[in-house]
Amino acid sequence: MSSNYGPAFEPIEWHRNRVRILDQTLLPGDVRYIETDDYRVVADAIRRLAVRGAPLIGIAAAYGVALAAARGESATDAAETLRATRPTAVNLGWALERVLAASDVAGEAILIHDEQRAADLRTGELGAELIADGATVLTHCNTGSLATGGIGSALGVIKMAHRQGKRVHVLADETRPLLQGARLTAWELHQEGIPFEIIVDGAAAGLIAGGDVQAVFVGADRIAANGDTANKVGTYGVALASHAHDVPFYVVAPVSTIDARTATGDAIVIEDRGEDEVLSFAGARSAPGGAVARNPAFDVTPAHLISAIVTERGVLRGPFGGAIAELSAREAALR
Amino acid sequence: MSSNYGPAFEPIEWHRNRVRILDQTLLPGDVRYIETDDYRVVADAIRRLAVRGAPLIGIAAAYGVALAAARGESATDAAETLRATRPTAVNLGWALERVLAASDVAGEAILIHDEQRAADLRTGELGAELIADGATVLTHCNTGSLATGGIGSALGVIKMAHRQGKRVHVLADETRPLLQGARLTAWELHQEGIPFEIIVDGAAAGLIAGGDVQAVFVGADRIAANGDTANKVGTYGVALASHAHDVPFYVVAPVSTIDARTATGDAIVIEDRGEDEVLSFAGARSAPGGAVARNPAFDVTPAHLISAIVTERGVLRGPFGGAIAELSAREAALR
Repeated sequence: MSSNYGPAFEPIEWHRNRVRILDQTLLPGDVRYIETDDYRVVADAIRRLAVRGAPLIGIAAAYGVALAAARGESATDAAETLRATRPTAVNLGWALERVLAASDVAGEAILIHDEQRAADLRTGELGAELIADGATVLTHCNTGSLATGGIGSALGVIKMAHRQGKRVHVLADETRPLLQGARLTAWELHQEGIPFEIIVDGAAAGLIAGGDVQAVFVGADRIAANGDTANKVGTYGVALASHAHDVPFYVVAPVSTIDARTATGDAIVIEDRGEDEVLSFAGARSAPGGAVARNPAFDVTPAHLISAIVTERGVLRGPFGGAIAELSAREAALR
Repeated sequence: MSSNYGPAFEPIEWHRNRVRILDQTLLPGDVRYIETDDYRVVADAIRRLAVRGAPLIGIAAAYGVALAAARGESATDAAETLRATRPTAVNLGWALERVLAASDVAGEAILIHDEQRAADLRTGELGAELIADGATVLTHCNTGSLATGGIGSALGVIKMAHRQGKRVHVLADETRPLLQGARLTAWELHQEGIPFEIIVDGAAAGLIAGGDVQAVFVGADRIAANGDTANKVGTYGVALASHAHDVPFYVVAPVSTIDARTATGDAIVIEDRGEDEVLSFAGARSAPGGAVARNPAFDVTPAHLISAIVTERGVLRGPFGGAIAELSAREAALR
């Protein structure tokens, strides 16, 4: 199941009209899979973040519609349910549009997955050129295999640099509230044998100021037409610190993450998630009774703080408007 | 024990040659006290953060020396042990110097505690003028009674504004790794009846960008001669976001936190604490086996990001060098 340049595990797999989803909420303690032929189970897995990461959400949703089609259920109904699971990642709607327009739904879903694997490898090669031998790079959230189904976006770039023989050290933001950095990125880095340290999110700015970081690589959930980028909450603060200390700040994402129909970051809907993610952890309540929380899942980094956007079709430099428009037109012409 | 303008609980108390310390590591779940006549137990409580907050560390250390004196042990030895507990907070050394120079050690320690209570009230009044009716203010870590022994520094300002009848809403950074915001600040705000929401540290920048915050109030562990301020890790990122969006960023601290002998923030020693604080969350391990962490407990906010430093002797505006030199000279003349 794993190859030299594939993930060491499969976060999602299609097999004989069933999907098998690695339940990411249980990692790193437990490696357990959800197997189903019901798109509703897939929708639930997306909703509760058992499967997450913008590109992987798109793949999971595509497989969900394929399950509906295989059982003779309405693909449109399935797509509607799947589309409503999470509002911020644009890849979700993009993948649903592709499978709904296809005659062979399952074939199209598998193609989306395969294309993502290939895109990750190409993106990794392009991005790895931005990492110097001996560099310490900082990353936020999880943008590895567990986020894309390939080798990853931002983390894929780091893996590729490592596989090319560059010495690279990673500072991984733990990424509250759900600790995708401490749980998932650390798990992937450990498997790859890449040296890393986990830090609390609040430590990133001080370490960047102290000269401990040579480059920052993050993923994206939606990139607006001007380059403004929605990503996991906490990303914007890292971008501000990078900018203040002239550390390059790179967004790494497949072209499917670009939403040319959204003009700027102001128009991106930010998902508010439940209070419990903030008030407790692993079932243990940390806040006092009566406490309430606010839990925006994403924030928007304005384009002027982004040094480059690395995609499978090339490395875009700011101002991004022209390059994004050109890329989107080219993508549309390819379909 | 509590009065209208005192804390609703006592984080530390001196009674007949014994001290009683509220064990803050167990809050908010458990309200339990450590009672001792041994300065070594006090030193241990400081080391493991059962008692914390720069001013309160100073008070605890002063009581520690008083315990040694009461048992006929060497005050100098006790002071040495207590001084070595934590490197960043300057109030620790300041309080130890005061009790070592005093003939009545216990009397001097009680005086330091009483002076802090009075200073907090005065600081609270001065700082409350900076809060508009209806404002949402953001704070980081815990700077309340649990940090000073009075009503608090930054949180004392917020309490004072509330007691004056202003409507104030608080966004409390949870403050990883030890969650002093989610555990301690939330506990104090709940007791005071001040409306608040807990947020993850990474959410602060996005909420500030969104216009949801009218002012930021934080404490300090050490303020250098030029105004550079060491405070709980994560503070610097909040300062950068405040600056980027023209939100006033206030440091609130007693004059004893100013270290005129340290020229700039570069010279402040930042305490590195153990990995376990990062690798676990609320007692449960979150990171995979083999993961390592880096855990700087503080960061430094440069003076140019600070709108004002609020002390019991007045509100200082930048550039701070002159005002701090004058204040330090006046304090030295008073002793």
